Amino acid sequence: MAAPFQFPIRIYWEDTDAGGIVFYANYLKFFERARTEWLRSLGLGQQQLREQTGGMFVVTEARLRYLAPARLDDQLWVTAQLQQQGRVGLTLVQQALLVPPPLSDQAPTLLSEGTVRIGWVDAASFRPTRIPSTILEKIS
Amino acid sequence: MAAPFQFPIRIYWEDTDAGGIVFYANYLKFFERARTEWLRSLGLGQQQLREQTGGMFVVTEARLRYLAPARLDDQLWVTAQLQQQGRVGLTLVQQALLVPPPLSDQAPTLLSEGTVRIGWVDAASFRPTRIPSTILEKIS
Amino acid sequence: MAAPFQFPIRIYWEDTDAGGIVFYANYLKFFERARTEWLRSLGLGQQQLREQTGGMFVVTEARLRYLAPARLDDQLWVTAQLQQQGRVGLTLVQQALLVPPPLSDQAPTLLSEGTVRIGWVDAASFRPTRIPSTILEKIS
Amino acid sequence: MAAPFQFPIRIYWEDTDAGGIVFYANYLKFFERARTEWLRSLGLGQQQLREQTGGMFVVTEARLRYLAPARLDDQLWVTAQLQQQGRVGLTLVQQALLVPPPLSDQAPTLLSEGTVRIGWVDAASFRPTRIPSTILEKIS
Repeated sequence: MAAPFQFPIRIYWEDTDAGGIVFYANYLKFFERARTEWLRSLGLGQQQLREQTGGMFVVTEARLRYLAPARLDDQLWVTAQLQQQGRVGLTLVQQALLVPPPLSDQAPTLLSEGTVRIGWVDAASFRPTRIPSTILEKIS
Repeated sequence: MAAPFQFPIRIYWEDTDAGGIVFYANYLKFFERARTEWLRSLGLGQQQLREQTGGMFVVTEARLRYLAPARLDDQLWVTAQLQQQGRVGLTLVQQALLVPPPLSDQAPTLLSEGTVRIGWVDAASFRPTRIPSTILEKIS
Repeated sequence: MAAPFQFPIRIYWEDTDAGGIVFYANYLKFFERARTEWLRSLGLGQQQLREQTGGMFVVTEARLRYLAPARLDDQLWVTAQLQQQGRVGLTLVQQALLVPPPLSDQAPTLLSEGTVRIGWVDAASFRPTRIPSTILEKIS
Repeated sequence: MAAPFQFPIRIYWEDTDAGGIVFYANYLKFFERARTEWLRSLGLGQQQLREQTGGMFVVTEARLRYLAPARLDDQLWVTAQLQQQGRVGLTLVQQALLVPPPLSDQAPTLLSEGTVRIGWVDAASFRPTRIPSTILEKIS
């Protein structure tokens, strides 16, 4: 299995809450950014895909486990890895990892992980539609 | 001058940051909610207006002063008051006030205030357009 | 089984994305608001609990299914229902339902549903701790 | 006058709204990220400053003009430039610029600009306090 796609994300004030840690919903933002950058790394821009095909991805299912909190100024790696590919949807495994301080010999700490299922829909009707072959060819 | 439109807003975890207070950008969310409810109180639903007229409001200018912080569980009043009305745009004065505890004889505390200028645009081209008369009649 | 706690949530511009629908992470915000209001309805304010006990709830697991999109101006009911209660954590079932137009005879539409597991932790160390008895008594 | 500090920001689904453009409050998030990275480029980490000094910056005033919209997948430069420096606060000028497509000979388009005033406060009492000399030395 190939190494997962990785995308760096820095924690800003906007991401944190009064508990002093990253608000739990924001990991879904981070996962979405990493999926977007994974698609972009394959030459797939979502705005362009929508203009060309009239379709877009929507999330149909998400599961997350929260293992340790992230804090202001933390540097994360967020991953995206294709787990399963169907005709109308994809399932990805995604993780958020805390990058250890420079010159440290610590391994990254797993902060949260989950699976996200995305489906391809017609952008006007939101009806599930077959994923365009241009996408399937690039992600395989 | 008429009393300003008032809308109640409760502070949740999502609104706060690691400083223990409401993140400064979120007051613009609160102001937008109050403007939306002010329009709705006049019979103007924005989704419906867009379907009927092809236009929508966009913000062209915002000014805010932050006087005191809001915290988790706080109850606010957020106001919207028309200050100036032109052919292609409106200016509103908006405030966020902390509601004092029940049975207290304290006055509400002004937390932040600002002015927001909104312009009517064509939703496809984003070109400034004259505000539809149905809107102007209702807000006057 | 008792009827679930219900909390009304209106969809604003801030909740939507360029797909024209509510961004998927925002349902976790809505679920959090409903959990907060459920606790408040039982006399439990989270800011106050933290000051009194030094502890707070954090989310340890979340699962969501997205069935139909919500749009600008939509009115939702968001529910919270205790499913399981342990010594250090609770599991809730939560739903987001679209309220049908007034005078319609339609039933509410289920937009998304999920389960959220929250654990009680020491607010300084984030170590799992037994849920204070004042909380357990009120939620039982 | 020195060239302003510049920080790249990509537009994701989370940043957009149902108007198809970036929601107006989110420019304050982008401006905050650029201020944070400007401080970090000077060796000033905010989490660390707070632990060492017990203080933090809060925004006391913000002014923004919105000139043109940003959209999904757009690449921006967000700037931060010190305009005025006092004993208890700083004023910055900030801009969001649209990066033109690669190999294009277009200049960047100014999307929004503003001034943000930040004050140094005691993190517990929120009382205005003199900016620590370690900060003043580095920003001058």
